[in-house]
Amino acid sequence: MKVTVCREAHFNAAHRIYNTSWDDEKNARVFGLCSLPNFHGHNYDLIVKLTGEINPDTGYVFDMKVLKDIIEAQIIQRYDHRNLNLDVPEFSERIPSAENIAISIWEILRKEISQEYQIQVVLYETPRNFVEYPATHL
Amino acid sequence: MKVTVCREAHFNAAHRIYNTSWDDEKNARVFGLCSLPNFHGHNYDLIVKLTGEINPDTGYVFDMKVLKDIIEAQIIQRYDHRNLNLDVPEFSERIPSAENIAISIWEILRKEISQEYQIQVVLYETPRNFVEYPATHL
Amino acid sequence: MKVTVCREAHFNAAHRIYNTSWDDEKNARVFGLCSLPNFHGHNYDLIVKLTGEINPDTGYVFDMKVLKDIIEAQIIQRYDHRNLNLDVPEFSERIPSAENIAISIWEILRKEISQEYQIQVVLYETPRNFVEYPATHL
Amino acid sequence: MKVTVCREAHFNAAHRIYNTSWDDEKNARVFGLCSLPNFHGHNYDLIVKLTGEINPDTGYVFDMKVLKDIIEAQIIQRYDHRNLNLDVPEFSERIPSAENIAISIWEILRKEISQEYQIQVVLYETPRNFVEYPATHL
Amino acid sequence: MKVTVCREAHFNAAHRIYNTSWDDEKNARVFGLCSLPNFHGHNYDLIVKLTGEINPDTGYVFDMKVLKDIIEAQIIQRYDHRNLNLDVPEFSERIPSAENIAISIWEILRKEISQEYQIQVVLYETPRNFVEYPATHL
Amino acid sequence: MKVTVCREAHFNAAHRIYNTSWDDEKNARVFGLCSLPNFHGHNYDLIVKLTGEINPDTGYVFDMKVLKDIIEAQIIQRYDHRNLNLDVPEFSERIPSAENIAISIWEILRKEISQEYQIQVVLYETPRNFVEYPATHL
Repeated sequence: MKVTVCREAHFNAAHRIYNTSWDDEKNARVFGLCSLPNFHGHNYDLIVKLTGEINPDTGYVFDMKVLKDIIEAQIIQRYDHRNLNLDVPEFSERIPSAENIAISIWEILRKEISQEYQIQVVLYETPRNFVEYPATHL
Repeated sequence: MKVTVCREAHFNAAHRIYNTSWDDEKNARVFGLCSLPNFHGHNYDLIVKLTGEINPDTGYVFDMKVLKDIIEAQIIQRYDHRNLNLDVPEFSERIPSAENIAISIWEILRKEISQEYQIQVVLYETPRNFVEYPATHL
Repeated sequence: MKVTVCREAHFNAAHRIYNTSWDDEKNARVFGLCSLPNFHGHNYDLIVKLTGEINPDTGYVFDMKVLKDIIEAQIIQRYDHRNLNLDVPEFSERIPSAENIAISIWEILRKEISQEYQIQVVLYETPRNFVEYPATHL
Repeated sequence: MKVTVCREAHFNAAHRIYNTSWDDEKNARVFGLCSLPNFHGHNYDLIVKLTGEINPDTGYVFDMKVLKDIIEAQIIQRYDHRNLNLDVPEFSERIPSAENIAISIWEILRKEISQEYQIQVVLYETPRNFVEYPATHL
Repeated sequence: MKVTVCREAHFNAAHRIYNTSWDDEKNARVFGLCSLPNFHGHNYDLIVKLTGEINPDTGYVFDMKVLKDIIEAQIIQRYDHRNLNLDVPEFSERIPSAENIAISIWEILRKEISQEYQIQVVLYETPRNFVEYPATHL
Repeated sequence: MKVTVCREAHFNAAHRIYNTSWDDEKNARVFGLCSLPNFHGHNYDLIVKLTGEINPDTGYVFDMKVLKDIIEAQIIQRYDHRNLNLDVPEFSERIPSAENIAISIWEILRKEISQEYQIQVVLYETPRNFVEYPATHL
């Protein structure tokens, strides 16, 4: 009788899609506008989903105020108003695609939240482009 | 070849998060503003998802007009413009957290809808806080 | 060359529509479900609009972080998670309709924000019901 | 370590729900307004979800620009501003219910997209009525 | 001290943009896909705005339940699930563009609502295309 | 009998708020995170509103396909996936605040669209922060 509880948060960041092992011409050809040298940016909408049992004393799976504070301290403080390529260490190695940002967020939260909860991250790069990690089972 | 059909509905209700086996001081400490004595409220957005086979005569898994009417008669008439703690019997025992409201809605609908359909309830307490019951399998 | 800058905020509150100079029967007849005795509630979405000249040193009409903080301190702290009828002094006299809540918010903000700015308040009681004060000129 | 990448698109179309093996009276009785003879229409919102492995060279599961172009060429060009019953061959046999439209979109995309990706289609007929194919596993 | 109160409603309809005094070739050249012969359709989102004084007995400018019922009886019953060109008399003469639909809705409501209220109609043909009648004064 | 027709568009860009006549310390003090040196970014949502008379031959105030193309050619091609401070000449002098971006968009469109139409620009920097230029008259 597991329930999933979900919390949405937001951050604004700059990035570019650039593979440092390729030359500029190949980056431009593969990634197009997303690879322009001076960066562009997004309002990222983040949904964090935790699945677990309800605590009968509180009626909560997880206190949303606590989850809000964890997301704020671990994710928003780290990514908001930052240049993901230049300011965030995990993206000096990983390309800051929506997929990789979602995985990085999941990895950070996985260390902060008890193993009794499953975690899924949904990340909107734009209202029309978004990713889910890990994938939902069809 | 199953399809999930989904219908959104809305209700406005007052509630507070309060464990009747705790004293006021502990409720205030654990639940904060959510436990204030005179209640607060929400515009709840409810999504009911039914999974089943398509009826080849209609092209429908389930007639959305019928689902709309079931939700209206069983859920909206019961919860809309009500104080969940004071007016709704199931929450004299259960804390009316989003998790427990979603489970109560699922239990009510489970009796109204044929077993050939799986039911999932998604309940938004605010645009940023929502729950899913039962949990989707990752 | 005036620009309008707008900031959205949210609060959750309980209320009922009840005219204390009428008896219960008349309140029920005129206001219906909105007048039920144990209150209901809403997620109120508030948009505050300030119209003024751009400061050429900042490119801002008004610093949105400052506006966010004023709304938080003056409005959200006052109304969020409250029962408008029981907990908020201005609604012991005024019926807490969306119209009157919008006017109260405008009156509070008018004292906090310099007269060089025009203020308009847009208040969503539900996604389908909202009010604007003062009215826009057609 | 699979990720789901999602792309939203839109099309506007006319349709009616009508079973050609029934007479008009039965269609009217079962389908109501949805069966009116001169058609009605919708702004369909389509979300296409692809699940697969991240390509480490690009950080992408699937290039969203390529997915956007496939959806445009195969789905939008086919359905947008069309009468689904009269102009689209697959709905001369299948009733153009949201369920059947979603299945048709899935079948078209399945031929265009490599088998290494799972595909799920989410189709909003209105903001309050939508379908998912194939169904998510609960 | 006027307040504007706003109510949103929805209808789904088919239409095409076609000037009956032009030949098909000219209609196709000017209107493109919007003029295709078998119609297309939209989920129209309608916002009706009434500006007036607050009634001190109710706290209301206009009872939203009454406005909802007027919109339902006069507009939704007339346009919902209809083909605007074929089923709605005012569009046998007027092209059912968003502009003309908004004006027709305004004209119908103007007869139903007391002259003490100003009326403005906002009509979304798609989430990205909408019209306002009468125009707001800049 | 004027009608306002509105078209929404989107662009993603990087920027920072920085007054080149101030030193870094003063920029950091006044602008906070918005002034961080490596830029951040936004999904800008742009609404362009044109007010004018309906052309009786078309039922249109202005052809939305033409407006879409003007916005694409003049605004999106210029700003999308760009760094506003580094790549866009008008923001080498003007701070790229939402206010100034809205005015720049208005100035560009004013040259492209006949004087018979009034133009208003609404620009969302985030879902909670937006500006209108010129200001609507209260």
